[in-house]
Amino acid sequence: MFAMIGTWEMSLQGLVLGGRTLQKGGDAGDAVVEAIQYVESNPDYVSVGFGGLPAIDGQVYLDAAYMNGDTLQCGAILSCTEVSSPVAAARALCGRKTNWMLCGESAKQFARSQGIPLRDMRTEPSQKRWKEAVEQKKADEASVPYKGHDTVCVLGLDSHNHMVCGTSTSGLFLKEPGRIGDSPIPGCGYYCDTRYGAAAATGLGEDIMRGCLSYEIVSRMRSGQTAQEAAEGALLDFVRTMDRLEEKDLSISLIALAPDGSFGAATTEKLFPFTVALPSGVRLFSCSPDGDHMNILQTSSVTLDA
Amino acid sequence: MFAMIGTWEMSLQGLVLGGRTLQKGGDAGDAVVEAIQYVESNPDYVSVGFGGLPAIDGQVYLDAAYMNGDTLQCGAILSCTEVSSPVAAARALCGRKTNWMLCGESAKQFARSQGIPLRDMRTEPSQKRWKEAVEQKKADEASVPYKGHDTVCVLGLDSHNHMVCGTSTSGLFLKEPGRIGDSPIPGCGYYCDTRYGAAAATGLGEDIMRGCLSYEIVSRMRSGQTAQEAAEGALLDFVRTMDRLEEKDLSISLIALAPDGSFGAATTEKLFPFTVALPSGVRLFSCSPDGDHMNILQTSSVTLDA
Repeated sequence: MFAMIGTWEMSLQGLVLGGRTLQKGGDAGDAVVEAIQYVESNPDYVSVGFGGLPAIDGQVYLDAAYMNGDTLQCGAILSCTEVSSPVAAARALCGRKTNWMLCGESAKQFARSQGIPLRDMRTEPSQKRWKEAVEQKKADEASVPYKGHDTVCVLGLDSHNHMVCGTSTSGLFLKEPGRIGDSPIPGCGYYCDTRYGAAAATGLGEDIMRGCLSYEIVSRMRSGQTAQEAAEGALLDFVRTMDRLEEKDLSISLIALAPDGSFGAATTEKLFPFTVALPSGVRLFSCSPDGDHMNILQTSSVTLDA
Repeated sequence: MFAMIGTWEMSLQGLVLGGRTLQKGGDAGDAVVEAIQYVESNPDYVSVGFGGLPAIDGQVYLDAAYMNGDTLQCGAILSCTEVSSPVAAARALCGRKTNWMLCGESAKQFARSQGIPLRDMRTEPSQKRWKEAVEQKKADEASVPYKGHDTVCVLGLDSHNHMVCGTSTSGLFLKEPGRIGDSPIPGCGYYCDTRYGAAAATGLGEDIMRGCLSYEIVSRMRSGQTAQEAAEGALLDFVRTMDRLEEKDLSISLIALAPDGSFGAATTEKLFPFTVALPSGVRLFSCSPDGDHMNILQTSSVTLDA
């Protein structure tokens, strides 16, 4: 048995690559990093890695994390420029006893010391997108275009029953330089414990962190809930709390993977696409809220045959 | 009823000040910030604020957080230099919908924009301490002096049943610049939900984050455990997990406060001193592990009379 689950349709091709690695008996860490790197290096995916969404100053600041569910060790880089593969840097930090979470210049220098190439992560389209949004923001200060905060998150289980998770993002569009979201934060953007399962989040990090939603999902799996019950329950409880606080228009989507390879998802969006790799192939699913539960529908599939 | 609990003996005088504010019917946020600021501004407390423990490059990098338990809003600054009151900057960020977690230069500029004075947080004794440790480290690379990671954490409950928590630290002695510990990270170094209680952690942040220990404690209080049961249970479960991974020599201490003003503490240290302010006065307690539970002893007390 092996399984992977990834956020958004952009993770589909990466899961095909990672799924093939797992099919050959490969390591969950290798497969998760391979899947995320495919997204990071592709400038068509505008919210992650190369060509990612710029901050208000036009620069692309990257956040990423990696967690080993067997050892509960993590690595993370925060608010870092020019690192061509943020998730590779996060993985290289995982295993350190201290200093495994690094921000800014220090994270960049660490990545360089590990042989991870540095590059200007800004592209012409990303600069165009930034200039237009800044102009629009000036024209209409009230409607700040705070859209676009899609993180690639991948949870993996390999045939050796090893679980791993990884995240990578350029963060909130037009964020302040130095802003940190949930993606590099353990318990918030991700959590993985091979005994109970793994979970990760995408959406507005500032809200996700208020509920420590990834840790909450794994806790619920520890208590015996399925991945779907845990993702759904954690989200709906948090939404009820936010309702009581009169906070509407949440933007949160969650994925979960159990140690038996069963998976779950939940969202506040009308539609949250996610991808799953299993020995039978890679599938694209859609998750959408329907009253007190989530509708999960398979929309297409790809085989793992090369 | 009001109550405050703080980490280490260094929080004692701050709790006297904050306790007086609460005695007059003041706000938990004001009392918590007042208590922490007393520690931040005192160079005799070498692991927090002014005169704090330097990183390997000799600079003092500060982490702090503030959480409002009524609204679940947070504010945090990470790896930031020259901010005279890190907790005041964190509190000023709390309430923002986005960009409430800022690192580095951006955090410093935010603090300045809020009228929080900037100052060189290095003192002659802190520089002397750094130089000696760097020399010692050169002389004996094997025995890295990774001691000193004492965070001031304060949890507060006011007579209006409002709960708040705050943390402030200069982080791990001789850390790499840009290193982030648990103190500014929600769910790890702190968490506060007025419905269930508040918790905070001090010790080696890299380990505390692997267990999301503050969120875990608040979750246990949500499930009906007392503050003491929750702090003890969260720590002992995590220690068992680390034992299984053959990770020894943990350095973790935890405090918890319930909405009824009852409190709890747990530690892996031989002795963890903590302080409590109640209408009857401010007391210093010692917490020490004794097999499967913690011994909590009152060691001295101060009245709140001015």
